[in-house]
Amino acid sequence: MGLIFYERVGHEGRRPSPFSWRIRYALAHKGVDYEVRPVRFADVETVRAVSGQHFTPVLADGNKVVHETWDIACYLEERFSDHPSLFGGDSGRGMARFINAWSESQLGPPLRRVIYADFPAVLDASDREYFRTTRERQLGMSLEAACTDPAEKLAAFQQACTPLERTLSAQPFVCGAVPAYADYIVFSIFQMARLGSPKEVVAKGSAIAEWRARVISLFNNLGDRYPGYPSQ
Amino acid sequence: MGLIFYERVGHEGRRPSPFSWRIRYALAHKGVDYEVRPVRFADVETVRAVSGQHFTPVLADGNKVVHETWDIACYLEERFSDHPSLFGGDSGRGMARFINAWSESQLGPPLRRVIYADFPAVLDASDREYFRTTRERQLGMSLEAACTDPAEKLAAFQQACTPLERTLSAQPFVCGAVPAYADYIVFSIFQMARLGSPKEVVAKGSAIAEWRARVISLFNNLGDRYPGYPSQ
Repeated sequence: MGLIFYERVGHEGRRPSPFSWRIRYALAHKGVDYEVRPVRFADVETVRAVSGQHFTPVLADGNKVVHETWDIACYLEERFSDHPSLFGGDSGRGMARFINAWSESQLGPPLRRVIYADFPAVLDASDREYFRTTRERQLGMSLEAACTDPAEKLAAFQQACTPLERTLSAQPFVCGAVPAYADYIVFSIFQMARLGSPKEVVAKGSAIAEWRARVISLFNNLGDRYPGYPSQ
Repeated sequence: MGLIFYERVGHEGRRPSPFSWRIRYALAHKGVDYEVRPVRFADVETVRAVSGQHFTPVLADGNKVVHETWDIACYLEERFSDHPSLFGGDSGRGMARFINAWSESQLGPPLRRVIYADFPAVLDASDREYFRTTRERQLGMSLEAACTDPAEKLAAFQQACTPLERTLSAQPFVCGAVPAYADYIVFSIFQMARLGSPKEVVAKGSAIAEWRARVISLFNNLGDRYPGYPSQ
């Protein structure tokens, strides 16, 4: 029995979830086959039956079910230890966890303040109300209120990107000469922006813009496999 | 001819420079002997004669002279490639560079707003005026003005520490189970705070506090080898 990847699917086959993107790249990096089971927010009972909780993505490997992206990446690293490494060793795994925490705490929150009002349009129509209700509760305000003053919000996001821009001015990938899991973590945030909003959040000609293009093109243009933001 | 480490020395043998601390730990990690040449800001011509520029630390290895901390760490990694690794491989080196950029751009600046008014007291008396003049020019205000509203400044620094606190809640070192160069980079910022100010910038009982104690104790308590902040 092969790997089964339960992942959130959006409007007309779109894939806006950053969490799924980092695992999709990790699976491609490992070069392993897997079966996709697309789920919507409305399929929460399916996800709960498989994994005992309601977040996606979930990876099932026979009887083994893993559901948090960091744990999925670590599982893939050990399960396919003779395939290309996601971390490049124990030190690299430690540092990738730091970059995971940085991405979640410093990059994701300001990015949401840029794109969240645009985001419902890329979700399956039946999921939009659930998304809006849960996110507005977390934010304590409407998606639109969270995204007022767009120039200021974009500047705050780009300020948070400073260490990334500096790093990528000195080397082609976060992980050096070749990409690995820390690249996929950070890329997934930019991919969420790129597929979940018509706004360009990356400065033209920046090192981040060039890196993003490199990561999109990996694995036969994996980053462009699914539709972009709906035309308006 | 052995390694010579030119490093800034402060008031009565103190060592408050974060840049020297990360290299001091890197040298201990590699387990190599070296000779120390302490320099003050006033010794700028000595440093310039050795390295062609005025920043410390500088590492001289025979005719080879290296003067930027990232370049020194990379030089040590290659020169002593059969000693314990600072990066744990190419991916790790890439990620350590990101953590270096994060530390410089996101951690150092808010920390300076907490401790800079205290800092001149740990410098050699003859260096205090130089330090104050150059830093106040960079800041565009006096050291004291930069450090007003201390509770707010400390909160901003601790907010910047979020990804570090999360990481160290899950593993003992930034680099995982054992420390490496990324730990020394980040530790050097906390060491600057610890030796350069009477203020405690780390929350008691936090994962960062426990990690800092572990890093201090490495290499026969290297972190406590020099005097702390002068008693007041």
